[in-house]
Amino acid sequence: MDFEALINPKVCAIIGASNNPTTEGYRFLEGWLANEYRGKIYPVNPKYHEILGLPAYSDIREIPAEVTIDYALIAVPAEKVPLEVQKCVERGVKFAVIFSSGFSEVGDKHLEPEILKRVKGSKLRILGPNCIGVYSTEMKLGYFKDQPIIGEGPVSFISQSGGITRNFIWTGFSRGFHVRAGVSIGNTIDISVSELFEAFAHDPKTHIIAAYLESVKEGHQFFELLKTITPQKPVAIMKCGRTPKGKVAAQSHTGAIAGSYEIFASMAKQAGGIVVETLEELTDVILGLKTLRDCLPFGKNIAIINTGGGIAVEMTDVCESNGFSVADLEDSTKASLEKILPSVNVIIKNPVDLGAVGFNPELLGKVIQFLSRDPNIDSIFLLQEVERFQVLNKRFQMGDIGKMYAEVFQKARNPAKPIIAILPRAWELLENFTIYRNYVEDLLKIGIPNYPTTARAIFTLKKLVQYRTFLKTHSETHLKKRKSENF
Amino acid sequence: MDFEALINPKVCAIIGASNNPTTEGYRFLEGWLANEYRGKIYPVNPKYHEILGLPAYSDIREIPAEVTIDYALIAVPAEKVPLEVQKCVERGVKFAVIFSSGFSEVGDKHLEPEILKRVKGSKLRILGPNCIGVYSTEMKLGYFKDQPIIGEGPVSFISQSGGITRNFIWTGFSRGFHVRAGVSIGNTIDISVSELFEAFAHDPKTHIIAAYLESVKEGHQFFELLKTITPQKPVAIMKCGRTPKGKVAAQSHTGAIAGSYEIFASMAKQAGGIVVETLEELTDVILGLKTLRDCLPFGKNIAIINTGGGIAVEMTDVCESNGFSVADLEDSTKASLEKILPSVNVIIKNPVDLGAVGFNPELLGKVIQFLSRDPNIDSIFLLQEVERFQVLNKRFQMGDIGKMYAEVFQKARNPAKPIIAILPRAWELLENFTIYRNYVEDLLKIGIPNYPTTARAIFTLKKLVQYRTFLKTHSETHLKKRKSENF
Repeated sequence: MDFEALINPKVCAIIGASNNPTTEGYRFLEGWLANEYRGKIYPVNPKYHEILGLPAYSDIREIPAEVTIDYALIAVPAEKVPLEVQKCVERGVKFAVIFSSGFSEVGDKHLEPEILKRVKGSKLRILGPNCIGVYSTEMKLGYFKDQPIIGEGPVSFISQSGGITRNFIWTGFSRGFHVRAGVSIGNTIDISVSELFEAFAHDPKTHIIAAYLESVKEGHQFFELLKTITPQKPVAIMKCGRTPKGKVAAQSHTGAIAGSYEIFASMAKQAGGIVVETLEELTDVILGLKTLRDCLPFGKNIAIINTGGGIAVEMTDVCESNGFSVADLEDSTKASLEKILPSVNVIIKNPVDLGAVGFNPELLGKVIQFLSRDPNIDSIFLLQEVERFQVLNKRFQMGDIGKMYAEVFQKARNPAKPIIAILPRAWELLENFTIYRNYVEDLLKIGIPNYPTTARAIFTLKKLVQYRTFLKTHSETHLKKRKSENF
Repeated sequence: MDFEALINPKVCAIIGASNNPTTEGYRFLEGWLANEYRGKIYPVNPKYHEILGLPAYSDIREIPAEVTIDYALIAVPAEKVPLEVQKCVERGVKFAVIFSSGFSEVGDKHLEPEILKRVKGSKLRILGPNCIGVYSTEMKLGYFKDQPIIGEGPVSFISQSGGITRNFIWTGFSRGFHVRAGVSIGNTIDISVSELFEAFAHDPKTHIIAAYLESVKEGHQFFELLKTITPQKPVAIMKCGRTPKGKVAAQSHTGAIAGSYEIFASMAKQAGGIVVETLEELTDVILGLKTLRDCLPFGKNIAIINTGGGIAVEMTDVCESNGFSVADLEDSTKASLEKILPSVNVIIKNPVDLGAVGFNPELLGKVIQFLSRDPNIDSIFLLQEVERFQVLNKRFQMGDIGKMYAEVFQKARNPAKPIIAILPRAWELLENFTIYRNYVEDLLKIGIPNYPTTARAIFTLKKLVQYRTFLKTHSETHLKKRKSENF
């Protein structure tokens, strides 16, 4: 099955398009236009001749026969959906995406079987109902006007929640990655979770697959499929409906019958998937996968570079109490550090407490160089207090601190070992916010992800080590040979 | 012992003040001047006649005899500290605050006893060494120029780390509270943790005590004291040096010998203290204590108000898996909600999923009104997607959304039950950041704290319930009678 016309549709219709701003049909069309959708749009509504400046059709079957309709969004009351689906079948539409709600999620037992009856024997495939459909950065097909398409990235997202799809895209952007596509799947009466996973597994522009799932109807098939994807592309799944009350909420949401979370999580993990419980965890892990894909660490030995003793104690506790080790440095590393660092207000062990020297990019670069070549160290946590750059910036007349740091780090690092920036937030002043955003972007450009707390960095690193270990066992050949192994 | 002259000093000297910008003596003086310290400053350094525009003294003993020196900051190399302390004794200084490091934290065993020998029998008290001293918003005595004094608040902070003191002040501001005073205590060779706790217990302008501790030398005395403070003022302690490697880091930091974390945490909890492990947890809890002091909940029943089904499932799971209950609503509450809410795209159970109606302040106010009077409900979690306000703002021509929401909430709420805003971040665009900051401030003004995730809100609420339960047992009379008990 080819899902290209669903994921990157070139021609879209909206059944239920409207000039009335309070309707969802209006909001979608408004959003598509605002986002400058690259394809062609056909609004359908018998009440209008023209909708938002486009010629309107009273029936989807009246759209000229030579046009291939990839994607028909249906936004009419639930009870009218079966008939509109029927018309899509007659018109030869490829995909009908049912936005309307009021189906199994509210306990209705008739409408969904009725829809399936109408499509039986046809080529029409159904996404939803009760979903907000597809967000495609390639075609610039967005959702609503309030969410501009800002960038195109390597992550495709399959989601049983439209709201979480929107939040994932926003949060991704604020954390440092963009999506390629988002697919909100709703009640999944036809197109299944597994089919979409397979579609993105074969999509060459999707490098990471993320998902929000409440239930997977085709459990066994899904886990078998997952096993074949994860050796090629990392997959991170946010699974909700974990608790009894959460399962009830899931049923009200998409009619989902969520099974045992423990079994799901264990099966998914066995199949090489990364399972998380919250959107924050999901976006943190995706950021880690995106930036550190080529230097996933095997081991759990961390070197901490910081500029203050109390923070070093806090960071050490968080690493150690989460199964990681703030490892002893090699004597030769310590000797190298002693040669370049002052003897006062600097602590040359792990954590390496640089005090004010930590704001000297050249020295910091050298410290990174020595630490990242220490065989005892798998990853480096670099704590930086961004709000202090502002003062340093003025004092040392540095034009663009972030670019300068990034250049130094890039030159100094061992490309086989991750550097993760821990940036405790200092967003209280607008000026700090701007400095922070710029710095984060400069680091992202060279593949250094950022986390506001050690706890979130460690959570992510734990998942990356787990995935690296899975790859080692299942598909060593798919990974670039790690240069560190030569040291 | 009266610590007023330490916490709000009216006359300060800096021994080791300098015109050389690379010295710490310069940085402190520069910071005090930049922050417009309200008292009088005497720089001491025999090399200069004038430092940063102030007349300099070659010896602290040369400052005119009629001047009472409250606070002498010592920033000279470690080996010179005992002599300077001796001079402070001779001069009759009240408090000597030793910034210099290079004492027990680096393994030196002679200098600290030497300092204590010099002060023996005198009235001089020592803070530190290896500390950055006092931050007093009342006197506008700050630390360095990079950290302006922005506001004055009810929280006093006692900290074994200067870096964490600075971060606590910054983070507090960004989360929504200000400090009254911060005291960095370093190696605590003289003034003890307990003495400072006692000082803030008696300080009428301190309503909440927060602390970062690595070790407390006078353990038994400390817990006995804590028991007497917590019925009057909440105390939250971030305890580090929890793991074996964390203890090693603590020793390098302040020479602290950290004992068993489990014992500390259990003793502190028994004494009514709130114990946390990270700065994020500490500032989250302090925000909760500050905003919800008069409506601390007993029970663990939460009502969730949200605008999207997937998020409702996620929130429910997080509450339930952390020992809280997303409780069933009373039938009468449901009936009241049914009367005012539309029947489509709204789910009238807990979580209450309002869909787009959630952006209608009047309806949202009524929902809050009904939920907060439901006897099954102890607290309300209100999820709001701030980035969507921007669009609504334009559409509905609302001048100041935050103020309007706050007014509606204030009128609708039950003052005996907390409302906690869950605001998933949308700081990716500068415009969103500004909307977010303004909204957060509008809510804080009416005592609604905000958390970016349900997990962080639940963590805080758990600590508040624990504290409320302690108060119930130990000092019911100190709490305002909860109005909810009349319902």
